[in-house]
Amino acid sequence: MSNPSLVIVGSIGIDHIETPSEKRGGILGGSASYACAAASYFTSPGMVGVVGDDFPQAFLDLYQSFDVNLDGLQRAKGRTFSWTGVYEENMDNRSTLETVLGVFENFEPKLPESYLDAPYVFLGNMHPGLQLHVLDQIRAPKFVLADTMDLWINITRGELEQVIGRVHMLTLNESEARLLTDRHTLLDAADALLKMGPDHVLIKKGEHGSMLFSRQGAFIQPAFPLGRVTDPTGAGDTFAGAVMGYLAEHDACDEAAIRRAMVHGSVVASFGVEAFTLDRLQSLRKPEIDRRVEDLLGMMRVDL
Amino acid sequence: MSNPSLVIVGSIGIDHIETPSEKRGGILGGSASYACAAASYFTSPGMVGVVGDDFPQAFLDLYQSFDVNLDGLQRAKGRTFSWTGVYEENMDNRSTLETVLGVFENFEPKLPESYLDAPYVFLGNMHPGLQLHVLDQIRAPKFVLADTMDLWINITRGELEQVIGRVHMLTLNESEARLLTDRHTLLDAADALLKMGPDHVLIKKGEHGSMLFSRQGAFIQPAFPLGRVTDPTGAGDTFAGAVMGYLAEHDACDEAAIRRAMVHGSVVASFGVEAFTLDRLQSLRKPEIDRRVEDLLGMMRVDL
Repeated sequence: MSNPSLVIVGSIGIDHIETPSEKRGGILGGSASYACAAASYFTSPGMVGVVGDDFPQAFLDLYQSFDVNLDGLQRAKGRTFSWTGVYEENMDNRSTLETVLGVFENFEPKLPESYLDAPYVFLGNMHPGLQLHVLDQIRAPKFVLADTMDLWINITRGELEQVIGRVHMLTLNESEARLLTDRHTLLDAADALLKMGPDHVLIKKGEHGSMLFSRQGAFIQPAFPLGRVTDPTGAGDTFAGAVMGYLAEHDACDEAAIRRAMVHGSVVASFGVEAFTLDRLQSLRKPEIDRRVEDLLGMMRVDL
Repeated sequence: MSNPSLVIVGSIGIDHIETPSEKRGGILGGSASYACAAASYFTSPGMVGVVGDDFPQAFLDLYQSFDVNLDGLQRAKGRTFSWTGVYEENMDNRSTLETVLGVFENFEPKLPESYLDAPYVFLGNMHPGLQLHVLDQIRAPKFVLADTMDLWINITRGELEQVIGRVHMLTLNESEARLLTDRHTLLDAADALLKMGPDHVLIKKGEHGSMLFSRQGAFIQPAFPLGRVTDPTGAGDTFAGAVMGYLAEHDACDEAAIRRAMVHGSVVASFGVEAFTLDRLQSLRKPEIDRRVEDLLGMMRVDL
């Protein structure tokens, strides 16, 4: 297998999820799982993560069916990271019932030689210390995207600020952008985040799409309107993974490429939430993505 | 004054509004006020409405400063319609503290001869019986937009369905679309609304913009991202008024014209919410609208 041009690090989990209409246990989850599967439509990503000795072979086979490079996947003694969550009636809010860190607790990402020259890197949501540890190993990254969450903003702000100062793009959701910057409006928050270092800030707004901010201005990416959302878990990771996959495929990271990447990311994520875990992505074929991209572009077009 | 090509009927009110940061009483409000002011940037609209003998001359002067045709404005004995409302902390929800119908209770819109050949008509949110009464008087309307609200869906559904069956475009917000159709997803609701008669359905989503549905597909119009919202009252009427003003100015109502009209409507509404009542619109000049339209189009553009 050739050296991956995109390296993705993040959690690999076994999820137990309850939505208003269904309950599913023991399914594959984690930011690295969603992001790698999504990226695989554009490039063969190199995964960095850790699983325990309880991790089913079927999930490893699944990664390989997506053509994910597993050279950076570690196997450790103990339980695989696991998340149990429940969604409220409108799917807008969710509660975590249980998080088992398992082997993720002592995870020390060690990248294989074949990953070290990767130009594109996605640092999925995890302890910023681990994100820095990965970043330190990559020799000459061209474009690094980092994700984070409220937990790290609250308890490891110093290290998180180091990450933010070293990446090209930061992604987080609206409330996290406000929490991190202490600014009320999205425009002010984005402004403050750009001042912290990254060239681009990508704010995720769930069913309302996303917004890109840079010194070149703003871009508003609407979500693909869906009839039915079965499980929104991993939608942000799917989006970000597809964005990075698209950039790696085209070896471009200018504003225009990022905007096109966001359209593709939005579409891949719209498929992802149609089913639990990677079920929909597993059956998804490139022409379906292309068709929905055309549809979405048509819905964004003012001049017909 | 020449005959208006756009006729706007709706409420004219004296509002008392409390937001988390400010309280303003005795200010001009009502759907016809907001819609006419917004439309006036594109055409000189003919207003249809009623005011009581307490209605300040200053407000009439204000309408005239916007070049609104007042031939269809009735003056009646009694109090002007009045609305008192308070916004919650996040401005997302508001509560009505008091509604005084006043002269609006016995309002019988009688259109002046000069209005009867108007090709463009905006039936602002009010009792569907009144909307029908106005529609009956217009001789050969080319494009009629009707707005409505949950109250009329709940208590006068029969007449409302008659209105919907006779207009070219229906506008309402997301929750009202669900209430009226008993469909959960926006796509299903829009589908059901199109089956009720109109060629276009325009769903308002507040700070998340709006969506247009027609047999030609969907269009997603993002809201102009704002640093600061002072008072969202009348934003939907401002949006709809500007949409209709734009269509009347260009004498066009095809899909492309409506999409361009929505961009302009979104921009005029974004100015409107920067201050209470018509305060911001009063000082707003066309070049400011054009500049923000260019900015917003730039934020919607994928191909740079």
